Amino acid sequence: MGPVITTVIRIRYGETDQMGIAYYGNYLTWFEIGRTEFCRSLSAPYTKWEKQGIFLPAVEAYVRYKDPLRYDERAHIKTSIREVTSHSIAFSYRVTPEERSRLAAEGWTRHAFCGPDGRLLREPEPFYSWLKEISRSSAKEVV
Amino acid sequence: MGPVITTVIRIRYGETDQMGIAYYGNYLTWFEIGRTEFCRSLSAPYTKWEKQGIFLPAVEAYVRYKDPLRYDERAHIKTSIREVTSHSIAFSYRVTPEERSRLAAEGWTRHAFCGPDGRLLREPEPFYSWLKEISRSSAKEVV
Amino acid sequence: MGPVITTVIRIRYGETDQMGIAYYGNYLTWFEIGRTEFCRSLSAPYTKWEKQGIFLPAVEAYVRYKDPLRYDERAHIKTSIREVTSHSIAFSYRVTPEERSRLAAEGWTRHAFCGPDGRLLREPEPFYSWLKEISRSSAKEVV
Amino acid sequence: MGPVITTVIRIRYGETDQMGIAYYGNYLTWFEIGRTEFCRSLSAPYTKWEKQGIFLPAVEAYVRYKDPLRYDERAHIKTSIREVTSHSIAFSYRVTPEERSRLAAEGWTRHAFCGPDGRLLREPEPFYSWLKEISRSSAKEVV
Repeated sequence: MGPVITTVIRIRYGETDQMGIAYYGNYLTWFEIGRTEFCRSLSAPYTKWEKQGIFLPAVEAYVRYKDPLRYDERAHIKTSIREVTSHSIAFSYRVTPEERSRLAAEGWTRHAFCGPDGRLLREPEPFYSWLKEISRSSAKEVV
Repeated sequence: MGPVITTVIRIRYGETDQMGIAYYGNYLTWFEIGRTEFCRSLSAPYTKWEKQGIFLPAVEAYVRYKDPLRYDERAHIKTSIREVTSHSIAFSYRVTPEERSRLAAEGWTRHAFCGPDGRLLREPEPFYSWLKEISRSSAKEVV
Repeated sequence: MGPVITTVIRIRYGETDQMGIAYYGNYLTWFEIGRTEFCRSLSAPYTKWEKQGIFLPAVEAYVRYKDPLRYDERAHIKTSIREVTSHSIAFSYRVTPEERSRLAAEGWTRHAFCGPDGRLLREPEPFYSWLKEISRSSAKEVV
Repeated sequence: MGPVITTVIRIRYGETDQMGIAYYGNYLTWFEIGRTEFCRSLSAPYTKWEKQGIFLPAVEAYVRYKDPLRYDERAHIKTSIREVTSHSIAFSYRVTPEERSRLAAEGWTRHAFCGPDGRLLREPEPFYSWLKEISRSSAKEVV
């Protein structure tokens, strides 16, 4: 659905654990970086939506871990829109080490449309129209 | 399946984000605390398994966010076994604020049985028998 | 200066790094837990000050690492007031593993008195009087 | 003392707290990124030293917070060597927002030379000679 945006991260020492691999909780942080860059690279930075009173708290998250990332590795996060409903947006993510071919992890998150008071919003404009337009655009990979 | 173990956490200031609620990535950390306490309270601390060469890297994680936790709130994490297979163990979690009745979040994680070299282990003993025994025991809530 | 308040933490798996010890950045999080519990146990929870419009952003932090903490260890954080000035409060911290005699780390942090807009406040009441009173009280250890 | 290496970070959503600014503990993580890039850009990646059995646990850390960083801001971390002794290395850091002139924070960390067993090492070669050579080189800024 629409564009795939790639962001590059590098694994921090503090993101490893005593198993010698990246701690499993960090993937949700990297997914967040992926969707932040997704919005920015499509000219709609998330900071702008918050200023307009649209917040996107997570309502669901799923991660499938494949092959662990290690300290100092660079990895590519590929983010795309998975689904847009009247009250929520879901993003998909694929995380791949730069120098190995195997997928490190993949997953998705779903976010409600909320006002500053936490109340659910239905098709909040102009965010909703932007999302529909982006997700309908022909799939293309933006690096 | 078997016992339900309750652990209490308190939300740290550093666990909040600028939405004024607990950051969504922290729930995987709290799930980890839940399964650590699950093992310890059933006389099988996770540190012991690592010393015996059995590691439990995550292979899947799912979170359903219901009602956000806030700074300084205490919350109860209820952890139980969801499924044991020949190569993995899955835990379920329910996170509830101490002073509100609504569930904050629920979810589950699945972990592979691995050796120190990261190789998959099949029914590693004595861990596997312990798991089977625990999960077959009649359901009871241990607080 | 005044009371010493003890808080107990347990080292989380996600707080370790690939050296097999607690990551050095976490100590600032544990110091934060120490001062949160300091305020609460003296009947002045930090949440209350924020509601009254008094914020305490850090302006300085220092840590001396002695003997690393490890996964699943319990540690005691002893927090006390180090200094109160017209515009800031400094806390001292000592972190000791529960089952070993050697100090794990010690340090201090200094925090400005600020309004919700980030502007510096001079002797903000009633917070300031409370601090002066607490810090003048005869030293005693509260566990 | 020797070169100054600049690394760029962008503040993550999960790095903010409910004050709406970057949480104070994250600066130690950013300092870690600074010294990782310092070593890499001078052809001596930290991963290489660990493989040779030289570890650098922190023994001291100091941060002076000036002007808080905010979500999605880019910041420059300038890292240099502060001091080399027979048993330790100290780095200095300056963190500056990319689009504002005021310093966000500055500080330093000191690290012991240790073997894989945690034992203190005296002038471990070839790491020590590399450090001495780097720190004696005429100051230059590498971007």
